[in-house]
Amino acid sequence: MAEEFPMTGGDGPNSYAKNSNAAAKAADGAKAMLAAAIFENLDIETLQSRPTTFRIADLGCSVGPNTFIQVDNIIDAVSQKYHKKSKVQSAGELPEFQVYFSDLVSNDFNYLFATLPRDRQYFTAGVPGSFHGRLFPEASLNFVYTAYALHWLSKIPDELRDINSPAFNKGRILYGSAPYEVGQAYSAQYAKDIKSFFHARGQELAPGGLMLLLIPGRPHGTLPAQNSLAPYFQPLESTLADMVNEGLLSEDKFDSFNLPVYCPSVEELRDLIEENGCFDILTLESIGQMAFSLPSAQGCRAGTESILRKHLGDEIIEPLFDLYSKNKNIAGSASLVHDDSMAVGFFVLVKRKLL
Amino acid sequence: MAEEFPMTGGDGPNSYAKNSNAAAKAADGAKAMLAAAIFENLDIETLQSRPTTFRIADLGCSVGPNTFIQVDNIIDAVSQKYHKKSKVQSAGELPEFQVYFSDLVSNDFNYLFATLPRDRQYFTAGVPGSFHGRLFPEASLNFVYTAYALHWLSKIPDELRDINSPAFNKGRILYGSAPYEVGQAYSAQYAKDIKSFFHARGQELAPGGLMLLLIPGRPHGTLPAQNSLAPYFQPLESTLADMVNEGLLSEDKFDSFNLPVYCPSVEELRDLIEENGCFDILTLESIGQMAFSLPSAQGCRAGTESILRKHLGDEIIEPLFDLYSKNKNIAGSASLVHDDSMAVGFFVLVKRKLL
Repeated sequence: MAEEFPMTGGDGPNSYAKNSNAAAKAADGAKAMLAAAIFENLDIETLQSRPTTFRIADLGCSVGPNTFIQVDNIIDAVSQKYHKKSKVQSAGELPEFQVYFSDLVSNDFNYLFATLPRDRQYFTAGVPGSFHGRLFPEASLNFVYTAYALHWLSKIPDELRDINSPAFNKGRILYGSAPYEVGQAYSAQYAKDIKSFFHARGQELAPGGLMLLLIPGRPHGTLPAQNSLAPYFQPLESTLADMVNEGLLSEDKFDSFNLPVYCPSVEELRDLIEENGCFDILTLESIGQMAFSLPSAQGCRAGTESILRKHLGDEIIEPLFDLYSKNKNIAGSASLVHDDSMAVGFFVLVKRKLL
Repeated sequence: MAEEFPMTGGDGPNSYAKNSNAAAKAADGAKAMLAAAIFENLDIETLQSRPTTFRIADLGCSVGPNTFIQVDNIIDAVSQKYHKKSKVQSAGELPEFQVYFSDLVSNDFNYLFATLPRDRQYFTAGVPGSFHGRLFPEASLNFVYTAYALHWLSKIPDELRDINSPAFNKGRILYGSAPYEVGQAYSAQYAKDIKSFFHARGQELAPGGLMLLLIPGRPHGTLPAQNSLAPYFQPLESTLADMVNEGLLSEDKFDSFNLPVYCPSVEELRDLIEENGCFDILTLESIGQMAFSLPSAQGCRAGTESILRKHLGDEIIEPLFDLYSKNKNIAGSASLVHDDSMAVGFFVLVKRKLL
């Protein structure tokens, strides 16, 4: 059974909308690559000769503003390509754009819709559901985008919570510095999820359609235990451990709690995409280290509140983030860039093969 | 500037989800007609020979459950037609269905998405926006449905609030029993809105596509002042008048408040559709008197709370519906059917002309 852990909605101080700078920076860094990728690789010819609807989906869009910015970037790049290829000059010759903003059912779509850019040049729809399954009709999409969302697993591997398993993940909330078996359990779940993701997208993308994935990963040849996201969540882990020590959280609960995120290596990702068989890999490369600040209490809360509530209870939230905000490693260091050579971003561009 | 007055969201006691029996009954009465209309009039031939995506939009869907029930009815009827016409027996030969649930931005889409039927056989999207403007790409819809939503106007005609106008609507919240000019002001606004509606749908519906409208109307040859919806809102009007008498609401505010709803005659509607020119009228008929109970306080609140809050202030809501619930005309009579020969339902089926 898949689980749902959306970003925190609305625009309050703990919301994703107000706490998504890291994702914004990372996506912004990829903007030029995005434009070039579309310009070089989009086959206008495989679309109908008469301008028609060009459908874009952002999967795992959360609530903006990042998704609105990137959608504009995508539409700008596609429009440039149309102008160049079709030798048309008037915007009237462009296709109409329809943008599907998709995220889990529990995403705050009300807030997303209320904050849509007023001057947008596209038709809008919100699509609730998990990107690990089908969301759209066959061959109905021309461009799929997903940014810093695919590291979220559909579920926590069961063995992490099995005290009799070698993958029992005692005292940790992730697989960083964990035994080999823990990393393998995460890796196996990731493989299952990515296979489901590509299987669904293979059906939904029209022939010649492009898919651009921005994915947090780890360097070539490294083990999961050296995973790049561990330092990012280390303040959360140590704060939870402090709560156990202070008797505010039971050790059992702490031991059974694990974050459903995973960062693959390039090799893992390439194997999974090739196994699917529906896509030509156009680009699959590291776009360099992901420099990030350790998340503030608000930043961490925006991304993890729903999963923490579900597994540890509502009553944990306020004391947890109160304590977190006093953590000496992050207090007052919101602008301190964390230097982690294990944290790399992947820029993955694939094209749906022609039928 | 168009205004937004969604039904009350969520599933609380004052929600539309719990208080939409009248609309449910009316729509249920049209179910057999709906199935026959689709079966007789849907041209499978004008769709591509290979089964593809069949796109349905419910405009003014609110939050269900009515919309889910009617969407199932539509899909059943379309599927039957496919089976019959294509002589195919396996469901695999059917098109894939994609259903757009559309309502105002302020509609509770979070609740709508959370309550989607789990066993649905279609892809889902929510589309925020006013049906008085464009919502979908050109020729992208195959079937449009809207039930008991088109009587909502995009705005209140200005002259109703102009003390110097003959259409100044003192002491009333609707045009029932009002001077001729009041009804004319409502009628003119309705004409503008319906023209916008049909203009947008003419662009969005694919050639041969069907549109089914269920509309509250009034009998042939009657004046707006004899409008059928007035009795339905009479308890609200008299309760507001009581509040003025008791000093709980200023007379100015009461006089400047008007409900943005209008019921056309068949002639009005036919003229407006024919003026558009993009549609063949297949059916335009009364489906008989709309028998309805006077709405309970909760029922009235579900449909009018947002507009009342906006125009009369948040503080009015609790005392208003507290007083409303004590109204002798409706107290304890939730099951009393109101007999109003002025209240008729229209069943309107039109087909987008071929290009």
